[in-house]
Amino acid sequence: MARFENSVAVQAAAAIREDRLWQRHMEMAKLGATPKGGVNRQALSPEDVAARRLLMEWAGARGFTVATDAIGNLFVRRSGADANATPVMTGSHMDSQPTGGRFDGMYGVLAGFEVLEALEDAGIRTKRPVEVVAWTNEEGSRFPVGAMGSAVFAQRLSLEKALAVADPSGTTVAAALAETLAAAPAPPRPAGNQVAAYVEAHIEQGPRLEAERKTIGVVTAIQGSRRYAVEIIGEEAHAGTTPLRARKDALSTAVAIVSALEKMMHDPTDTIRFTVGRFEVFPGSPNTVPGRVYFTIDFRHPETAVLEERGGRIAEVAQAHARGCAVTVTPLTDVPPAVFAPAVVDLVRDAAGRLGLPHMDMPSGAGHDAMHIATLCPAGMIFVPCARGISHNEAESAMPADLAAGARVLAATLTALADG
Amino acid sequence: MARFENSVAVQAAAAIREDRLWQRHMEMAKLGATPKGGVNRQALSPEDVAARRLLMEWAGARGFTVATDAIGNLFVRRSGADANATPVMTGSHMDSQPTGGRFDGMYGVLAGFEVLEALEDAGIRTKRPVEVVAWTNEEGSRFPVGAMGSAVFAQRLSLEKALAVADPSGTTVAAALAETLAAAPAPPRPAGNQVAAYVEAHIEQGPRLEAERKTIGVVTAIQGSRRYAVEIIGEEAHAGTTPLRARKDALSTAVAIVSALEKMMHDPTDTIRFTVGRFEVFPGSPNTVPGRVYFTIDFRHPETAVLEERGGRIAEVAQAHARGCAVTVTPLTDVPPAVFAPAVVDLVRDAAGRLGLPHMDMPSGAGHDAMHIATLCPAGMIFVPCARGISHNEAESAMPADLAAGARVLAATLTALADG
Repeated sequence: MARFENSVAVQAAAAIREDRLWQRHMEMAKLGATPKGGVNRQALSPEDVAARRLLMEWAGARGFTVATDAIGNLFVRRSGADANATPVMTGSHMDSQPTGGRFDGMYGVLAGFEVLEALEDAGIRTKRPVEVVAWTNEEGSRFPVGAMGSAVFAQRLSLEKALAVADPSGTTVAAALAETLAAAPAPPRPAGNQVAAYVEAHIEQGPRLEAERKTIGVVTAIQGSRRYAVEIIGEEAHAGTTPLRARKDALSTAVAIVSALEKMMHDPTDTIRFTVGRFEVFPGSPNTVPGRVYFTIDFRHPETAVLEERGGRIAEVAQAHARGCAVTVTPLTDVPPAVFAPAVVDLVRDAAGRLGLPHMDMPSGAGHDAMHIATLCPAGMIFVPCARGISHNEAESAMPADLAAGARVLAATLTALADG
Repeated sequence: MARFENSVAVQAAAAIREDRLWQRHMEMAKLGATPKGGVNRQALSPEDVAARRLLMEWAGARGFTVATDAIGNLFVRRSGADANATPVMTGSHMDSQPTGGRFDGMYGVLAGFEVLEALEDAGIRTKRPVEVVAWTNEEGSRFPVGAMGSAVFAQRLSLEKALAVADPSGTTVAAALAETLAAAPAPPRPAGNQVAAYVEAHIEQGPRLEAERKTIGVVTAIQGSRRYAVEIIGEEAHAGTTPLRARKDALSTAVAIVSALEKMMHDPTDTIRFTVGRFEVFPGSPNTVPGRVYFTIDFRHPETAVLEERGGRIAEVAQAHARGCAVTVTPLTDVPPAVFAPAVVDLVRDAAGRLGLPHMDMPSGAGHDAMHIATLCPAGMIFVPCARGISHNEAESAMPADLAAGARVLAATLTALADG
């Protein structure tokens, strides 16, 4: 693996254009724009189609080639001097939360694209091809398996299972993907998933860089995460006539279960992340005792032992508070913690240092596509600050200068890796 | 007020046809029929339109006149001998819960209509006109102010306020009503709300009649009810990166508030009815900390003092568990307990006795349109059993013989009142 002592890499970093990178963000932000300044560009939606078309249009204008694979991951490739060399890869995702921000995911795609343009502008010919990927359905908010495209690429999730996942309206990934690829067609990518190295740029989505006044986060690892679905079946009844003792109130049971899980997940070090994000109550009428509740649990921690021990107690705690209802706990996903390759981590740290950017090592609290690609090749990530650490929120914001700084570190790192 | 010693009244009861009454129920049950055997016929929906049109068709076939008022209450009138006499009224509602049953409300309308037909078949000429009313939006599930039509008719709710109520999609009563009346037009009813007496038939929606093996509930009163909306504004954040201590988690706050309210509402006598029926979480994505929760509280008790004391503590309990979120408690409705006129209650009891039907006095746990009409004239209600006391549920069920028995008591009571 290359060390960062390459003047071509510094040259690539110098060719990054802050104004162009920001402008591209603002153009993408129009696709699915919400009144509060965020975006709603869920996976395989018409807004996702529009983003794919725009990225391919920009790629075509610069002479880069595009391709998609069977799960709809979109690849933009700048060829290298050695036609047989495995590519160096970067990227992230273009889908968003229903009330998401303009930078989550999109930054990694556009920073990667900016690197391709910078290499082109500076006339740098790398040995390996450099590819930017927009991974399909990273958020998992519409289709509830996150980082789906990268998981399929890394063969950690079968294509068949991914295609069968359905959104709340019953539409499958297979159906939505067929529509998406018909509306934003690209040539198929040759089979195979050989990658020389992978580096993903992303906003931090947490408050640490801002608090410590650092521009670059050198990401060393990603905490593991587990997701569960809890379904509670009670009995609908009239709110005025049914004595409380005679009820099977699914909402009351759900409240008791969430309370008990919060207690069980209590962590004095505040390292555990425990979130009930989707919570649906049926039939949802003010004067009917709810007969059914469905909710999700998102549970993360950097240590496998903690994930196993506390995660293993969820079903038992839920059953202990069933209050006469039928309670089912279904594990949905289980992504182990990922540790990034020291060679890539060192390169990112060296690039930030060489470019004179304040930086710090840190783990990632969020999952990212990089956690799957790290099982294929040496991988790493670059974080830049976002305002107040707010993400998954329409108020998400980042500074043009910070975004450009991250792209410069990415340019230097990828160039070093592509020549190595 | 007439006593029940009128042979014409017994004659009217004898003309009730169980087969026809059941058949009419089954025809109405097709409108909004759900796969589980219930109905979804929410107020001012296309299904409500279909029910209005069918009732008017049946009325026309028997030569009864129809009319609507400004809030869309639908009146079917059989004229009396005295053209100047104020009418005796009966009725209930045709709208349902989203997953409602076939008898809740519809029974009162069809039992009333069966009485008109029985009077016609038997050639009985009452002194007063007899009117059957289908009151608009009794359920309050789509437009969250229940018993709306009867409240407006009784001038306990202004027409203006009623028309401004919106459903979750933002459609107002005014807009939905205009569409409904365009699709199911009827001549306007002359202004004024003078009523000689009102008797409403309804399924019990509770388990007591079945448990005590009685066919007729002689309803003496209706418990009071209050409804509140609670809105919690937190802050959306990323589920993986945001430490729990830094969160403003609207769902976690809502769970704490509901738990605390359940404790505050605890009642060793199990007389209090406390229900959180609608509960909505935004944005509803598994990996986003919820930024907003909206839920409703339905609180009922037969005593005004209890309604005031516990109801008055809801806001304070909610605020005490805000956990950094902004919490707003908005009172939506406040319907005091209603006590029915002894003269009407006695008449219902006498009719049941005279017809040899097992009966018992009881209060109503549910609110009904009768609670508003009772402020205009002497009023009462007749309950019949429903299977296992289940209502506001697609599994709601009742026996044809019980429905006919209630209609016979209604026929006798209305005939006595209409001649008095």
